[in-house]
This record gives sequence, structure tokens and C-alpha cells, in this order.
Amino acid sequence: MAFSPLVDELVESLRCLPGVGQKTAQRMAFHLLERGRSGGEQLADALARAMTGVRRCETCQNFSDTPTCTLCQNPERNTGTVCVVESPSDLLAIEQAGDYRSSYFVLMGHLSPIDGVGPSDIGIDVLLRRVREEGVTELILATNPTVEGEATAHYIADRLDGTPVLITRLAHGIPVGGELGYVDGFTLTHAFRGRKPLAD
Amino acid sequence: MAFSPLVDELVESLRCLPGVGQKTAQRMAFHLLERGRSGGEQLADALARAMTGVRRCETCQNFSDTPTCTLCQNPERNTGTVCVVESPSDLLAIEQAGDYRSSYFVLMGHLSPIDGVGPSDIGIDVLLRRVREEGVTELILATNPTVEGEATAHYIADRLDGTPVLITRLAHGIPVGGELGYVDGFTLTHAFRGRKPLAD
Repeated sequence: MAFSPLVDELVESLRCLPGVGQKTAQRMAFHLLERGRSGGEQLADALARAMTGVRRCETCQNFSDTPTCTLCQNPERNTGTVCVVESPSDLLAIEQAGDYRSSYFVLMGHLSPIDGVGPSDIGIDVLLRRVREEGVTELILATNPTVEGEATAHYIADRLDGTPVLITRLAHGIPVGGELGYVDGFTLTHAFRGRKPLAD
Repeated sequence: MAFSPLVDELVESLRCLPGVGQKTAQRMAFHLLERGRSGGEQLADALARAMTGVRRCETCQNFSDTPTCTLCQNPERNTGTVCVVESPSDLLAIEQAGDYRSSYFVLMGHLSPIDGVGPSDIGIDVLLRRVREEGVTELILATNPTVEGEATAHYIADRLDGTPVLITRLAHGIPVGGELGYVDGFTLTHAFRGRKPLAD
């Protein structure tokens, strides 16, 4: 950029955000400079503190400000049931639903041999140790219903074969509020096979 | 967010960026924490420096690190011709085209009585003084071809009525590489009226 090295640098740095290219970065930089200086300063501060202060929880691998995260520290949470998710945003979605009140394990990814992501890279060894040594009675494998998510779930289940722990997977079916006409065949098949008596 | 106040604060701060809502902010925060810590630190630094260091150029009103921007300081630029644009991104587009080598004036907006934006808010008085006192011979009104942009251009032209300065507006016509079938009627009319001998 011809007129200001500082603006130039800001635009270049904004491109590290996902989904932000040159034009969007420019628009963001100009917006902050024109109309959002205080927001920009606050963002700079929040970024600097988060980048240095946020670590991984020793128990569940989720992001945390402290060695053990607030969810794992909460004594009201049942540690006998562990829900395994791929990412913090999956955990957030479950927390926002508000029904599940036990503990989590965040893989921060899924098995992907083609990208060189093996079991130890996503902490599956840590999870297995926790299941075997800490009296976990149910392990809910809530990885995504994608090829990699399914493979990750099956790998974990295989490794726990013979361990006295109930291993479950989230139910497939029609989304609440969805229209049958727009639901794909696989989902409909799952919904039919998993049908329940109306009284349930 | 349940697990980390620092992440929470980062997500909230990211929402000051234009076009970034709760979900996108979350995705950005998690991306930076998982895979882009160094990029995040660099962004925090660039933001902090830009928010405090970038001011407005005293001559052209554009963003600048110094009291007068590098474009206005450049002795090779002809100051007798001034191109008036609405925003720094318009200026950048013209600079990237690479043909125009004279000076600019950046309004940082357009006249918009409904939003309470009057002539002095976008520095039209500063522009008029510059035109009258600094021997400007041509003023190119390159505001956008929108209702507000046209109104702003006409207002400036009206105020300079009687001043010995050539006032021009960018030509309308068919975009280079465009297909006639997709060009709107107004543009085609302008293109016909502005037609030129082939030898030109």
C-alpha cells in the first residue's frame, strides 16, 4: 500500500484470520481506522492476552486459562460419563443445548493419516488412560458424522474393546423442525430404524 | 463461554470487525488458538500500533503514519491536478491501475443529510481552500456513481462555480472485458453518447 506502512502491516496481519483475503482485510482495516478505533484497541489487547494466556486443560484438552478448566473443576459435573468431541465449538454447541451435565474430552481434531494426524496427536492415549484409570462408566463418542469422525470413533471403541465401559454414539435422525422432504436418504433410513413408540 | 474468560473476551472483541458475527468470531478465535498463535500475536501487535499510530494526512485527509502522507510528500506527483475520492480503498484501486500520477483528496465518506453528514464533516471546506489557494488547475471528481456520490460531486462543482479550475468527472461506459448483453441500459446509453472515432 502506497500511503501507510502501518496500515499495510495491519492488512497483511488480518489475513491470518480464516476466510479473510486481501479485500476483506482492507475493508476490516479501514473500518477499524475510520469508525472503530476503541474496538480495535480492545481487540489488540484481547488478542495479546489470549495468545499468551490460553493453554490446554490437563484433564479434557480444551482451551483453558488455568491448568484445569472450569468445566473439569466443577464438582457438580459427573466425571463417570465422558463426552468425546472434535473441537471446542462442538463442546460449546452441546453446552448451549444445556441438557448434558457431565464431563468432556476435546480431541482438537480427528484421525487423518493423510495429513499425518495419528492417535497420539489428538490425545487418544490420554483419553484411554483416563477411561481405564478414573472409573469412567460411559464414553459418548460425539465426533462428527463424517468419514474421519466415524473412523476416529471406531478407533477409540476398538482400543477399549474388553474394557468395562459403555460406549455410545449420538443418535442419527430427523433434525427437530426439519421438513421430511429435505432430509437425505441416509438420515431417513437411520430415523426409520431408530423409530420409537409414541408413548416414549 | 463456559471454559475460558480469555477466549470469551477474544470472541467478543473480534465481533467489532465488519461482517463478523458470533459464529465467525468463534471460528476465528479457535483457529488462531489452535493453529495460528504467532499470526495472532503479530496481529495484536500490528493492531495496537496502527490504532495509535495512524492519523489523517493534513493535505489529502488519507490515512498516514506521518503528518503528511507519502503520496503528498512525493515531489514527482503533480499537485495541480487533484482527484477527489470517497475512501482510501477507492484511492488504492486507482493507484493499482497505475496510470494516474497526480495528487488526491480523500473525503472519507459522502454527503448524506439523512445521516447528518454535511460538507464540513467530509472536509469539503478544506478541499475548496486547497483548490482556491494552491493553484489547482484540474479537479477530478471521482466519487462513486451512486446517488450520494453524484450529489457530493455536484455540490463541490457548485461551490467552485466561477473559480478558474477545470472540473471533470470519470467517464461512464462499458467495462473492459465486459459483455454487451450484460451491460445495463444507462451504461449503454452513456457508452453510445461518449463514443469515439476508432483512430483515437
